[in-house]
Amino acid sequence: MSTFRSIEWKKDKLVLLDQRYLPEKTLYLELKTVDEVARAIKEMTVRGAPAIGVAAAYGMVLCVQKLSKNDDLIRELQKADDLLRASRPTAVNLFWALDRMKKIWQGFNGSLEDLKMILEKEAVDIEREDVEINKQIAKNGVELVPFGAKIIHHCNTGSLATVDYGTALGVIRYAHEIGKKIHVFLDETRPRLQGARLSAWEMKELGIPHTIIVDGASGLVMKKFKIDLALVGADRIAANGDTANKIGTYNLAIVAKYHNVPLYVVAPTSTIDLKTPAGQDIPIEERRADEIRCVGNSQVAPQESPVFNPAFDVTPAELISGIITEKGIVYPPFKENLRRLFESA
Amino acid sequence: MSTFRSIEWKKDKLVLLDQRYLPEKTLYLELKTVDEVARAIKEMTVRGAPAIGVAAAYGMVLCVQKLSKNDDLIRELQKADDLLRASRPTAVNLFWALDRMKKIWQGFNGSLEDLKMILEKEAVDIEREDVEINKQIAKNGVELVPFGAKIIHHCNTGSLATVDYGTALGVIRYAHEIGKKIHVFLDETRPRLQGARLSAWEMKELGIPHTIIVDGASGLVMKKFKIDLALVGADRIAANGDTANKIGTYNLAIVAKYHNVPLYVVAPTSTIDLKTPAGQDIPIEERRADEIRCVGNSQVAPQESPVFNPAFDVTPAELISGIITEKGIVYPPFKENLRRLFESA
Repeated sequence: MSTFRSIEWKKDKLVLLDQRYLPEKTLYLELKTVDEVARAIKEMTVRGAPAIGVAAAYGMVLCVQKLSKNDDLIRELQKADDLLRASRPTAVNLFWALDRMKKIWQGFNGSLEDLKMILEKEAVDIEREDVEINKQIAKNGVELVPFGAKIIHHCNTGSLATVDYGTALGVIRYAHEIGKKIHVFLDETRPRLQGARLSAWEMKELGIPHTIIVDGASGLVMKKFKIDLALVGADRIAANGDTANKIGTYNLAIVAKYHNVPLYVVAPTSTIDLKTPAGQDIPIEERRADEIRCVGNSQVAPQESPVFNPAFDVTPAELISGIITEKGIVYPPFKENLRRLFESA
Repeated sequence: MSTFRSIEWKKDKLVLLDQRYLPEKTLYLELKTVDEVARAIKEMTVRGAPAIGVAAAYGMVLCVQKLSKNDDLIRELQKADDLLRASRPTAVNLFWALDRMKKIWQGFNGSLEDLKMILEKEAVDIEREDVEINKQIAKNGVELVPFGAKIIHHCNTGSLATVDYGTALGVIRYAHEIGKKIHVFLDETRPRLQGARLSAWEMKELGIPHTIIVDGASGLVMKKFKIDLALVGADRIAANGDTANKIGTYNLAIVAKYHNVPLYVVAPTSTIDLKTPAGQDIPIEERRADEIRCVGNSQVAPQESPVFNPAFDVTPAELISGIITEKGIVYPPFKENLRRLFESA
């Protein structure tokens, strides 16, 4: 386990490592209401598709815990569910976790105390499963990592983006743990700098050899250092394999293709959304201009200058060599093979 | 002319708009010695290949102005020349301007006062020619810009990177001035953010419609907004057309190719270096890690994390649709056509 927890449940509150202040400050935030959880997701106190899913599940628990017999149970839970679903539109794990919770509360006809207990157990299960799933993903993915591999990575997909261990960074961590002597180049990942702020901090804590680069240097780095493979996470994988992930992933994938560097998407099957046929159907969140115009206290662009700030982009399936999940590695043709993954479950 | 001057000669001092503080502060710096000029180039108080060339020429003037008859003239000038040449290795305009100055002082056998006058005149000529050259570049390049064009641009190539008017941004400016109703998407250009800090500021001052994006968003932007062309500057163009320019240009060129967006390099012929056969022969400056680890007062990465910070990358000729110069637009095959450009001169 890591020396820190991005997310921790404590009976009647959710404790989050506030990711907005890393690496400068390690602050923890205690959330006691579903409104606080929704805000934390929106403001990226907690981020990373799997971590968001778990946080949302606990948001539902915090909601039900506050209810008494006189409340309109279904109405209150539906309100909380709506609120959480509206927090961030792209990552499908949020909806997947809320669906799991909803399946329980929607038709529930036991006592309120039972519902509280069962919803809490479901959230705890989602949390625990996430760590197990990540470890299985790592075991599946590590076979693609050659000894001495140089890997390029975008955004943050480590313990901070999940409950623990991570997805793409989980594969990297496991490769390091079993002595593969890897080196990871970390895209800093503008505008929120999750690569520089979070992934570098995790690699440093774990003693994994790494180098931070600006996003625009990935082509030069692939050429100069003979990168073996690119590993990225995912916020939503459409039925045809098109993958929404942090802005900059699409560029990285194009640049990887140009250099014949295979790019693998690393994600739990909960990130695969068979109901979304293709990438063009994935809603892409746009965030506020000041994420680009300001860094910390510095104004780095004129306040009057317009900004386009999409939080994600879509990498078409043709640029993806494979999708590493806890159920195995999925190769093209993705439409067929992703569907098969769920049929065999 | 622009409302500001990046560089201004005042008889016995060189006044520079200190580009490190834009857009937050508009500070001017007065330089009175060649050491100060070399430091200003190194620390990027002045930047942009053409502007660096002009600053270096005035650096030589400041040197000769301080000399008296008892000094070892050639030795002092050679020392100044060496110092300036060591300030930044990649942009060839620096060497080109110093070569022009050296041609005069090296074999000079007139009086010291004459030499002072003639060197000053040469520097003033280099400065004046730069503006005329940029305007001619703009006239040549504008034919490639369709009405209503959406253009993507990297780094800063405007008045701030030159004496005035600019190279790639000069073409954009001229297209705007003659009513082509263009819109320019500006890569913010990490790590020094010349796109967000400088190009956006220039576009705002000139009233040219623009949008700032992070470097990693160029692929999404090309696809979503149907970009017509990409325009970039150059720090050195090798004999075969391979072009060194600000880090991130290579990625942009690969992404442009993938989207069938033509990418044009815009530069004066003084940026073409026929003595450098190919891109692999261009020295690439690496700058200090804190340019990536810190933004303003904010630490955005762990201090312990290693950083790779190349200031430039090389875009291979195969990704370049054409090179727009004051002598016309050069198309592939570049090796042949670049050489021909100088033969016809």
